[in-house]
Amino acid sequence: MSRTEIAQLGEFGLIERIKSKSQLRNTSSLLSIGDDAAIVAPPQSTQMVISTDMLIEGVHFDLSFAPLSHVGYKAVVVNVSDIAAMNALPSQILVSIALSNRFSVEAVDELYEGISKACENYKIDLVGGDTTSSPSGLVISITVVGFGDPNNLVSRSQAKMNDVVCVSGDLGAAYMGLNILSREKMTFKQNPDMQPDFRQEHEYLIRRQLMPEAKTDLIHELAELQVVPHAMIDVSDGLASEALHICKQSGVGMYLFEDKLPIENETKLAASEFNISPTTAALNGGEDYELLFTLSPQAFEKIKHLPDVFPIGIVKEKEQGAHLVTSAGEKVPIQAQGWKHF
Amino acid sequence: MSRTEIAQLGEFGLIERIKSKSQLRNTSSLLSIGDDAAIVAPPQSTQMVISTDMLIEGVHFDLSFAPLSHVGYKAVVVNVSDIAAMNALPSQILVSIALSNRFSVEAVDELYEGISKACENYKIDLVGGDTTSSPSGLVISITVVGFGDPNNLVSRSQAKMNDVVCVSGDLGAAYMGLNILSREKMTFKQNPDMQPDFRQEHEYLIRRQLMPEAKTDLIHELAELQVVPHAMIDVSDGLASEALHICKQSGVGMYLFEDKLPIENETKLAASEFNISPTTAALNGGEDYELLFTLSPQAFEKIKHLPDVFPIGIVKEKEQGAHLVTSAGEKVPIQAQGWKHF
Repeated sequence: MSRTEIAQLGEFGLIERIKSKSQLRNTSSLLSIGDDAAIVAPPQSTQMVISTDMLIEGVHFDLSFAPLSHVGYKAVVVNVSDIAAMNALPSQILVSIALSNRFSVEAVDELYEGISKACENYKIDLVGGDTTSSPSGLVISITVVGFGDPNNLVSRSQAKMNDVVCVSGDLGAAYMGLNILSREKMTFKQNPDMQPDFRQEHEYLIRRQLMPEAKTDLIHELAELQVVPHAMIDVSDGLASEALHICKQSGVGMYLFEDKLPIENETKLAASEFNISPTTAALNGGEDYELLFTLSPQAFEKIKHLPDVFPIGIVKEKEQGAHLVTSAGEKVPIQAQGWKHF
Repeated sequence: MSRTEIAQLGEFGLIERIKSKSQLRNTSSLLSIGDDAAIVAPPQSTQMVISTDMLIEGVHFDLSFAPLSHVGYKAVVVNVSDIAAMNALPSQILVSIALSNRFSVEAVDELYEGISKACENYKIDLVGGDTTSSPSGLVISITVVGFGDPNNLVSRSQAKMNDVVCVSGDLGAAYMGLNILSREKMTFKQNPDMQPDFRQEHEYLIRRQLMPEAKTDLIHELAELQVVPHAMIDVSDGLASEALHICKQSGVGMYLFEDKLPIENETKLAASEFNISPTTAALNGGEDYELLFTLSPQAFEKIKHLPDVFPIGIVKEKEQGAHLVTSAGEKVPIQAQGWKHF
């Protein structure tokens, strides 16, 4: 594969290249890449939700097993997921990248291929960003914007007593995917002649780790059924950590039922390979990018038929605390492990 | 000075700390730090301008001579300047930081002290961001949002024939400040016993480099006088580079007059110390964060009395190209040097 140095294009050449490959889909995007700022027209009577995430090579992704296009795709998805967690849909993103001289123009193309693919899938416009050099590795910082009806926006702080706690999909898979990728990397390091052991049964887990999707489908479905959750958050740091955020910010307690946690068979099998309890993978694994939300029992009745609604618990009084009710009927306090960046 | 490790606080503790020190000033900021996204209410009948800048230690700033509070202040200012360049005022920012374990909680406090000071001065609310670890050094990524009357927003692409080209203040000072700081750093490295030679005559230059201001005053003045420029850009990469952006994006030519370039005496003196032509410092130095704009001769009449309006050129037909008319009356083609990141 040919290698073109970024210095050959220069910063402005690189920006031109990125711009030429991006297309606008939303009428709200009035002025895109190539000026001091982008101009966006907020749709009538909406409020804006805005979120940002920074991904660092060696902390959030490992290019020894994650292709650049997957990294780009996932970088957009984790941001989209934050907007979905507000019960809104994203419409614009700004993407900043810092690159060391290890990266060629072709590498940047691959990264933006993933970014563009995610923009296409989630109907988002890339309207701005920044490009710069980095002394070491790749940094991707994305800001995402969405607009929603003020009556529909959902924070973490309005969970109510007796709300049903739901999650939008299975948990723990991305974490087991990471374990498998890390193991194969170690094996490969020790014995470069060995083929990595990526069995078909692991395909789902690896996909959940490298190319997750944000649950915007659920946001569309909730809108159609005119159901607005009381509280919502996306599961990036693990179910336990997110449940505790809702409890703290809403001033409530919560019971989650171990029996009800949606965990795929592939996840259970891999967990047993690694001597990890599947419940631990689900509670503390993270990077699932499912939505965790609470809503009234009446509202739950309206959406319980949806394929991506799994009731897993109930909102309690604050004094009852946050507990996992195990399959054996024991109450175990929920503790956040989450991702430790520091 | 005491040192608290960030690991002692953890990511959520750090976010709490940052949140507790930030205050909201704008009624449009509805939900701030601590949810999946911030919620902002766009003021009636406005359009949003949004911009982002990423600053990397060792590329954009050097902590051996820039105090962290200055770095934080400047990081906000460079973003504010982008919004001003659209003829708008900023109202919200999101700040993401990546930190290596070299940085303590006290260091983060100092950084946010500068960020908060800039937010106060420019009436901006810090409503979100991200914090993460970094394998090396400090990365700051800021996204800034502002709202403006659609009829007042100004891009780079509408400069018209015979427009007067103006700049909002003196040029080249920040570049000479950087030269002085770099020289003193080298001297100090070679001979640590020597005192750095920061003479009073250099104070202005060093301040322009380390703690520049964005020209939002001019945006207020233009609004009061009901003058809307045809094209505007902020001078971050040097006057030459920015003038060429306007020419290219507006499809026009431009004459700039060497005699008219506002250059402070301190800048001229330092330029002669370094054997640099002051005109070169002004044209190619960069980081001035002044506004370069074009407007009709009639509109210019309305604002020419303002202290921060310096007419420096005239918009010509595209065929005439972009030229500097020297003091000797020669026409020299303008060439972009700008900052080479790659």
